[in-house]
Amino acid sequence: MTPSQKLTELGLTLPGVTAPIGSYVPGIRTGNLVFVSGQLPFVDGKLLAEGKVGADVTPEQAIKAARQSGINALSIAAHTAGGIDNIARVIRLAVFVQSAPGFSDQPRIANGASDVMVEIFGEAGKHVRAAVGANELPRNAAVEVEMMVELKG
Amino acid sequence: MTPSQKLTELGLTLPGVTAPIGSYVPGIRTGNLVFVSGQLPFVDGKLLAEGKVGADVTPEQAIKAARQSGINALSIAAHTAGGIDNIARVIRLAVFVQSAPGFSDQPRIANGASDVMVEIFGEAGKHVRAAVGANELPRNAAVEVEMMVELKG
Amino acid sequence: MTPSQKLTELGLTLPGVTAPIGSYVPGIRTGNLVFVSGQLPFVDGKLLAEGKVGADVTPEQAIKAARQSGINALSIAAHTAGGIDNIARVIRLAVFVQSAPGFSDQPRIANGASDVMVEIFGEAGKHVRAAVGANELPRNAAVEVEMMVELKG
Repeated sequence: MTPSQKLTELGLTLPGVTAPIGSYVPGIRTGNLVFVSGQLPFVDGKLLAEGKVGADVTPEQAIKAARQSGINALSIAAHTAGGIDNIARVIRLAVFVQSAPGFSDQPRIANGASDVMVEIFGEAGKHVRAAVGANELPRNAAVEVEMMVELKG
Repeated sequence: MTPSQKLTELGLTLPGVTAPIGSYVPGIRTGNLVFVSGQLPFVDGKLLAEGKVGADVTPEQAIKAARQSGINALSIAAHTAGGIDNIARVIRLAVFVQSAPGFSDQPRIANGASDVMVEIFGEAGKHVRAAVGANELPRNAAVEVEMMVELKG
Repeated sequence: MTPSQKLTELGLTLPGVTAPIGSYVPGIRTGNLVFVSGQLPFVDGKLLAEGKVGADVTPEQAIKAARQSGINALSIAAHTAGGIDNIARVIRLAVFVQSAPGFSDQPRIANGASDVMVEIFGEAGKHVRAAVGANELPRNAAVEVEMMVELKG
């Protein structure tokens, strides 16, 4: 099953890509790699989770936010690649978790983004990962996800 | 106009590159990519902005600091590339902003670094970016910028 | 002297690699680059240093923890590369230091990871680096190290 078929099976729709207004871009291809800008858990222009994980935001909410950030990053990767089926593998995710003092389960939150990659790509969705805490993130988002993928051919 | 001509037009001078004393280097080339170590907003050995953005450091000061960190990173990229005109494109910036509690406008600060790339390279200066908060940065610097560029040919 | 001979001379043993249970992997090869997931300072399943550097953890302890995280990352890079002697160069380390308020000597801590690369690889161990503070890290670890290396041939 191709990744695009898998998306359909999972009932997942990749959101449209809106270019940020400014000096940076959502995704860039160099050689057979695509790099994606850090993505927040936006759904239809609204953040899925705002605040510190472990205080304002529960781990369950943060996992969903990480998943959404991952989907948003994948959407950009697919757009940059000319279609999700041109992606051979997910190479790297960096997951920044806006963490309340004492919250140290960033890996569990990051799984939200990691797991959706494997749901869509199977073995080719397995990637290296850095899960790191941050005291503050843009727009008070609970999670930010950066991505790198490898293209086919 | 070449990037070096653009530098002249903008009245910008890239600072000299001093190798850090230690086990790491300012820049490294692998294939047609150059990676640059995280750069602080030094000007003539002094930091342009120290402290937390949103408390000790205003957004305006932090934007200037991000711009300077970006210039310092570009200087290393150019040096590693054998000259700025050997740089084809800016691929990625990671901008860490030392953030006071409640400060969540890291993207606006990061624009300081992003914008100068487009001033110098035009469309080829547009890059992917991660803008992330940090509770502490080296030497109490307000900003740290990491960079990756692609070379010509 | 090859890196593996150097390991013997230094009395260093690379730990075994255990695949994380989940959707990510310790290391991945793409082209002639190997990327490694963020590593904590585990020794035999126990963290070498837990807590904030500058408060619960002294700089000396954190340097040792960074060194161990670097060794753990190298172990994965070597495993992914099919042996340490297939590694041509260390390209990049990202060192996240779980920092107490006011602690701003992340570079000194990061040297623990950087120095061991040069001990093992000599000039080829010199890399670019980002040293960044974090308010929280996974499992309350004092340090996390991400790595990228270039392979031979």
